[in-house]
Amino acid sequence: MTALPSLDEDMEQGLTELTTVDGLAGPAVRRARAWLSRAAEPGSVAFWRFVEDAGAVEAVRRLRSGRAPDDVRALVGARAGQDASLEDLLRAERCGARLVVPEDDEWPAQPLHCLTLATGEEPDDPRHHAPRTTAPVPPLALWVRGPARVDELADRSVAVVGARASTSYGEHVAGELGHQLGERGWTVVSGGAFGIDAAAHRGALAADAPTVAVLACGVDRVYPAAHGALFHRIAESGLLVSEWPPGAAPHRHRFLVRNRLIAALTRGTVVVEAAARSGAQATARRAQKLGRQVMVVPGPVTSAMSVGCHELLRDVELGAVLVADARHVVESVGRLGEDLADPPERPTGPRDGLSDVAVRVLDACPVRSGVGPERLARVAGCDVLDVLRVLPVLELADLVERTDGGWRLTPPPEPVAGAGRG
Amino acid sequence: MTALPSLDEDMEQGLTELTTVDGLAGPAVRRARAWLSRAAEPGSVAFWRFVEDAGAVEAVRRLRSGRAPDDVRALVGARAGQDASLEDLLRAERCGARLVVPEDDEWPAQPLHCLTLATGEEPDDPRHHAPRTTAPVPPLALWVRGPARVDELADRSVAVVGARASTSYGEHVAGELGHQLGERGWTVVSGGAFGIDAAAHRGALAADAPTVAVLACGVDRVYPAAHGALFHRIAESGLLVSEWPPGAAPHRHRFLVRNRLIAALTRGTVVVEAAARSGAQATARRAQKLGRQVMVVPGPVTSAMSVGCHELLRDVELGAVLVADARHVVESVGRLGEDLADPPERPTGPRDGLSDVAVRVLDACPVRSGVGPERLARVAGCDVLDVLRVLPVLELADLVERTDGGWRLTPPPEPVAGAGRG
Repeated sequence: MTALPSLDEDMEQGLTELTTVDGLAGPAVRRARAWLSRAAEPGSVAFWRFVEDAGAVEAVRRLRSGRAPDDVRALVGARAGQDASLEDLLRAERCGARLVVPEDDEWPAQPLHCLTLATGEEPDDPRHHAPRTTAPVPPLALWVRGPARVDELADRSVAVVGARASTSYGEHVAGELGHQLGERGWTVVSGGAFGIDAAAHRGALAADAPTVAVLACGVDRVYPAAHGALFHRIAESGLLVSEWPPGAAPHRHRFLVRNRLIAALTRGTVVVEAAARSGAQATARRAQKLGRQVMVVPGPVTSAMSVGCHELLRDVELGAVLVADARHVVESVGRLGEDLADPPERPTGPRDGLSDVAVRVLDACPVRSGVGPERLARVAGCDVLDVLRVLPVLELADLVERTDGGWRLTPPPEPVAGAGRG
Repeated sequence: MTALPSLDEDMEQGLTELTTVDGLAGPAVRRARAWLSRAAEPGSVAFWRFVEDAGAVEAVRRLRSGRAPDDVRALVGARAGQDASLEDLLRAERCGARLVVPEDDEWPAQPLHCLTLATGEEPDDPRHHAPRTTAPVPPLALWVRGPARVDELADRSVAVVGARASTSYGEHVAGELGHQLGERGWTVVSGGAFGIDAAAHRGALAADAPTVAVLACGVDRVYPAAHGALFHRIAESGLLVSEWPPGAAPHRHRFLVRNRLIAALTRGTVVVEAAARSGAQATARRAQKLGRQVMVVPGPVTSAMSVGCHELLRDVELGAVLVADARHVVESVGRLGEDLADPPERPTGPRDGLSDVAVRVLDACPVRSGVGPERLARVAGCDVLDVLRVLPVLELADLVERTDGGWRLTPPPEPVAGAGRG
């Protein structure tokens, strides 16, 4: 171990390294994010804000030296003095995995932007934050295993989720959906679980389409254990994705934390079978809160595994769409790509008259730390010249503002009553 | 035949007879409606308006003597010179049936009021009327066979319709629905056909609940022929209902004309199984146009007999509600009784502030000929004193007006441009 550079040395050097070279974050940033991914359990709004504000390298330095705010330090605890970041990166490398960080071009910034926006709605006081299992907070980094690019697969993807204790009907439908979506060039994202998840993954694989399993444990682990062959096949053409470092165990609460990623990474979520008051229902409601289309496959009213699906379809406020096949799914998420430029969390007024490019640039702007036009252009998928053309318009409309670090969304107005700080 | 009074003699006497005695129309009125029921095929807006304006007895006199407008006479043709009215009434009597007419207290005026309102929306020019198979026009009379009162059964009733070529799943669900609705005191109305219709009727009968089959042929005929025992059981406790006189054959187009009655007589229509672009779908859309709640039972997406159901549930404008059991159905039509006081054909503005009693009295008012407060009280299900209390309010709001014959809805304003008549 002595031959390896220490974390703290790496962090000191990292302060001066170029952010990206050839679309890849520098080694110090990656190591910092690897360390953060083990140091704190994902899903904390306060922790994510701390890292976002300080930057990954500086965040690690402060946590290691005890200079982070108390509430953030408490989330790391004794792990501040430990370091397995290089081991984790090497362990990932050995199983064909790597760490994708927000500073990489490959980062699925556009899909995850809905989480950034939702996090922006969380109050300042951490005591009032949503609990970790339901908090809408972006991941700090993603461990991915497989040959595909996560941003590319997420771009045209649909989540297919449902009961573990599925019926043969549900598995048949999930398999057909996976197959038909795969044939149409859509990526099926699911959780790699028994039942509907596995059937959907298998359907996609049968169509020779890459599929993505978002796991609640390390990408080198197989849970459930019987899915070794399935995960191996997924990792051959698609991706296994996890917020947790290699070796992490599939604790129960991690599945709930994980579910927000399945909803956020995809354009919409299809529920195939769900019992009454089930986890699949909760995932669907979460997708809706993130502005994603909820789609539901009905079933026989005599089947307990369709009761949850029918409850979702009876919920007028949820706005779920009944889908019977992949054609219906593509129809729904296709429309979404045009119609739902703005997530429901922000009022729409001033955005209405914007051009397509302007909306994309606006969606690419982060909530907190500003970024440069080059990065906006990459995330928005347009030329830098386009970005420079529309930024003044967005600034005039009071939608974005310039900071030292670059451009960001204009923060919502402060509450009228003073916050009483200081 | 010479011992029987001739139709024309009866009509002359009928002009002076009291309209109702003990809630029953006089014999001349009943004979007139019996004659009309055979003289013209149901479903004609122009014919219904002619009878409504002239009154049944006078309408028959004019038609018999050639003094009716040309377009109305053309609908009767050579039948103007024929008369089987007494034979029809006697034939009905022999099979335990009778003719219920709008002048009877038993007439289901409140449910059928939606057809009166919809007919009011039809243009003056008969050439622009909806075709007979889809025209929203009230029946001229109803031949009913069975011990129950048609107005009472219609009051708390739900239509359960669906495919003839149903699956065992659909029949099971329809039977369960019929049974559970019957147990809860709701009347199942259907069309007496093979498949879903029969299963729904049988379910209701198994719960010892009266059920109503609205037929497209005479109530003394059995179509389909295999349903002799079923119709016999329905007629023992519930009702067989038809617009057509005894002996009338089940012509294909009559089923379409009949369907509007199933929708109008009930508070809502449940579709259990329906193929793509099927008759059950058309019935559901018709119910929606009449302001009735459309409810749909989903099924396996792998079943061709549920494709039509899923199409209905995917149609956002239809506003159909997914129902999985009788509880869901009662929830929907229960709400309807409160929320849908006004059918969609009329603007709602001035009605918003009205009391529950006022809305019921308003709904009881006919479009054309005025009626007295006693009749309004009976139809609205409240005291005459209540009616007398709210009528001045409704008159002030310009919702009703007093005519020689009594109270009626204020007609909609004339078009701005002159009609150019005369």
